[in-house]
Amino acid sequence: MQGLYFEDLSIGQTAEMTRAADDAAIRAFAAVSGDDNPLHLDDAYAAASSFGGRVAHGMLIGAYVSALIAGRLPGPGSVYLRQTLRFRRPVRVGDEVTARVTISALDAATGHVTMRTLCTVRGKTVVDGEAVIMAPRRPA
Amino acid sequence: MQGLYFEDLSIGQTAEMTRAADDAAIRAFAAVSGDDNPLHLDDAYAAASSFGGRVAHGMLIGAYVSALIAGRLPGPGSVYLRQTLRFRRPVRVGDEVTARVTISALDAATGHVTMRTLCTVRGKTVVDGEAVIMAPRRPA
Repeated sequence: MQGLYFEDLSIGQTAEMTRAADDAAIRAFAAVSGDDNPLHLDDAYAAASSFGGRVAHGMLIGAYVSALIAGRLPGPGSVYLRQTLRFRRPVRVGDEVTARVTISALDAATGHVTMRTLCTVRGKTVVDGEAVIMAPRRPA
Repeated sequence: MQGLYFEDLSIGQTAEMTRAADDAAIRAFAAVSGDDNPLHLDDAYAAASSFGGRVAHGMLIGAYVSALIAGRLPGPGSVYLRQTLRFRRPVRVGDEVTARVTISALDAATGHVTMRTLCTVRGKTVVDGEAVIMAPRRPA
């Protein structure tokens, strides 16, 4: 199981996946993270909050970004070095989140790959940021 | 359920929690994120990799940071605006991860709270970064 090598990558290259931030995902993320804030889990509490209803954990959307990087671009064999995440809009229970990563810089000296990371719901940005990954070299 | 208000916060204020990145957590995170890379799940594959054994997903550690912020400092009612994560060392299956957040700046004009985020295993940094959160004002 091997993803792309540094030599396979070019600026502008992109990958995308869509995943539902549904009730099951939110409850599973609450359990694994330990974040059982009622804003994510309790309809009545969340309805009375400034969000007006339950929202997904921001870091659940971060998890989707990391899965796309680890699975697709560059994929298995790459090493995750850094990620920035800006939580721009709430993600509601059941929203279909599209995560997209796009290569913005390649450093041949270090093998580092910089990517813009963008997550949208119905075309609107919910989380954006930047990732830096080390891609493996193609074996000689 | 209400966390701390902006007026309760001061520079240097800190909170900490420890959580095991054990096999159950890693398998649950793989399921919820969709990242089923064998580096996290398959002993034989991971033993032959550059890591020499299975490691936790980096973003699982990010999830622990976000849970600490949402649950403790500032806690419920705060809004997560930004997070940077630098993945510095691998976290092995079963490692006890200590996440700590420490307030480094407070902006009274915006209610924004900046925190250093540090995750360690046996005293060594595994993930560090910075968070920006909006803390609610104490009602008049």
